[in-house]
Amino acid sequence: MMSSTTSGRTAPQRRNLKELSEAESLRRLASVPFGRIVFTRHALPAIRPVNHVVVDGRIVLRSGSGTIISAEVASWDAVVAYEADELDAGRRLGWSVVVTGVARLVADPEEAARLRELVHPWVEGEMDQVISIRPEFVTGFELVP
Amino acid sequence: MMSSTTSGRTAPQRRNLKELSEAESLRRLASVPFGRIVFTRHALPAIRPVNHVVVDGRIVLRSGSGTIISAEVASWDAVVAYEADELDAGRRLGWSVVVTGVARLVADPEEAARLRELVHPWVEGEMDQVISIRPEFVTGFELVP
Repeated sequence: MMSSTTSGRTAPQRRNLKELSEAESLRRLASVPFGRIVFTRHALPAIRPVNHVVVDGRIVLRSGSGTIISAEVASWDAVVAYEADELDAGRRLGWSVVVTGVARLVADPEEAARLRELVHPWVEGEMDQVISIRPEFVTGFELVP
Repeated sequence: MMSSTTSGRTAPQRRNLKELSEAESLRRLASVPFGRIVFTRHALPAIRPVNHVVVDGRIVLRSGSGTIISAEVASWDAVVAYEADELDAGRRLGWSVVVTGVARLVADPEEAARLRELVHPWVEGEMDQVISIRPEFVTGFELVP
């Protein structure tokens, strides 16, 4: 994957951080199929990778009723962070986006059914719950030479 | 990157989660150059990508005194989570590891100098602080067919 960049073996260059606009951050988040939901569990910081889609400006994911995400996030309107990135360690280039917002279980059956069709779980198991995160704060950066 | 797997376009298969042992989780964490530190900021969940090395069973990273990580994590012994993964969205395979533990600023000048030589920051700026996370809980999973 990085054969063209790891040859030569010069000292790795340090990069600058360029802030991304909110619109560009959401565009990049929508361009990738998975990210990481960040929440609090037993008063400790917790994180789980999960696949998502962005629909009408909201991050949509699926969960099962027996999962940690269901217990800690979907069962009440938890404030969560959601992070996605594409980082190339060989070239030290890429981007990361962090969204902070309230995660809500989609209760309306028709809305839940519509969104379920758009998110295809990667893992086996009952994944009937649909969780929607409305972005309140959106930040992103890009590594630039 | 995924040209061999996206041809064919059959319906994507769902995977099972296989738990990784603590030793295997730490081995995988040490095999990758970056992860994401998860902490609390203004009572909200927060996350930042950062590059790391694993030294003597601890996760070691560098930070600058003006950064958010410095203010929220290094200035007191914060409990953090640290996540790293290698996930291939095309094949729906890969792994993720989450470590929870106390993050401490390495205060001893000789120890800090030794560790600074092992972690090379990706971004420009003063990155004199060395932060060490001692794993208390280690979990990991692998996506398997």
